[in-house]
Amino acid sequence: MTRQPSGAAVLNAGTTDAINRAVLETLAEVGVGRLSMEAVAKRAGVGKSALYRRWSSKTAMVIAVLSDFSVELAATPDTGSLRGDIRESVGALLAWLDHPLFSRILPDLVAESGRNPELADLHTSMIGVPRRERAAAIFARARDRGEIDDDVEIELAMDLLAGPVYWRSAVRAQCVDDAYLDSVTDAIVTLVTSNRPAR
Amino acid sequence: MTRQPSGAAVLNAGTTDAINRAVLETLAEVGVGRLSMEAVAKRAGVGKSALYRRWSSKTAMVIAVLSDFSVELAATPDTGSLRGDIRESVGALLAWLDHPLFSRILPDLVAESGRNPELADLHTSMIGVPRRERAAAIFARARDRGEIDDDVEIELAMDLLAGPVYWRSAVRAQCVDDAYLDSVTDAIVTLVTSNRPAR
Repeated sequence: MTRQPSGAAVLNAGTTDAINRAVLETLAEVGVGRLSMEAVAKRAGVGKSALYRRWSSKTAMVIAVLSDFSVELAATPDTGSLRGDIRESVGALLAWLDHPLFSRILPDLVAESGRNPELADLHTSMIGVPRRERAAAIFARARDRGEIDDDVEIELAMDLLAGPVYWRSAVRAQCVDDAYLDSVTDAIVTLVTSNRPAR
Repeated sequence: MTRQPSGAAVLNAGTTDAINRAVLETLAEVGVGRLSMEAVAKRAGVGKSALYRRWSSKTAMVIAVLSDFSVELAATPDTGSLRGDIRESVGALLAWLDHPLFSRILPDLVAESGRNPELADLHTSMIGVPRRERAAAIFARARDRGEIDDDVEIELAMDLLAGPVYWRSAVRAQCVDDAYLDSVTDAIVTLVTSNRPAR
């Protein structure tokens, strides 16, 4: 009986890093529509088999790599206050959106998702939903601290963590500075606490 | 001496309408990167010369058609109150973003603008800036009515007229309903009046 470890365990971590990087670079360069497995393999210095050992298709590969990259960057450490947590979150969001490669990848992914329902579903389930859950944790902690009411509506507040900055940086191609992130933070805090007396 | 009218005046309005429609349909189908003058001419039932008589290049044509379409939809009638004007504006914004053709065009234009500086500049100057000016008129009227202070900061408020709805509908592919537009309206009104005593 051989002692060969099973599938996933034999994947070389260095190779995975090289592939991940190659996927991001290729996406930034040509977009998801024109990305080919050949181009990624060549850039990563591996054979196509190394890609197919990890993922069953191009779409699966793209979304898995983008999910790893994106969900990690949505970390929301507990700073001890709602305002602190929101400020951290919008700062992390800007770092994600303004990443030299990802700033070109996300607008393309959004456009392509409008044309490709399978991509759209994976985009939502593997990037949108897990990032949203991390954002929701901010408001759950604020409830636990008694900073916001249990029944406060947070749908819009969660969209405000990303919407204005995405609109300004990706759609309008305008600079987003610290003062702007502070204003977004204030607006969100006001929104979810506006029915409470000032303290 | 001939009495032929000069260039622009001889352009047939029916032909222009057919071309505009063909540009929007082709953009929605293949995106700006793959749009060809041939495809637009064929769809509009005209010769390519009819396009070049109107515009000097593909980029000029695309942006001119999108500007006409987009700026018209940013109309901000005076409803008599800041809240009413904002609610009209976010409603008109959703009609723009959710338009069956344009909902596929804008995300593609945003992505392509990230790769094409000439397109990005025209996108800003012929769509972004004129739409922004119409949005600014809402806050100017509110100042004239005494609803907001003269020195109130409106940069974020103007981004909020579009950012959350774009994030929700285009990026997250989630439904935007009237209740959501009401929440956005309330949030913007609160933002620009939050330093004033409640009335």
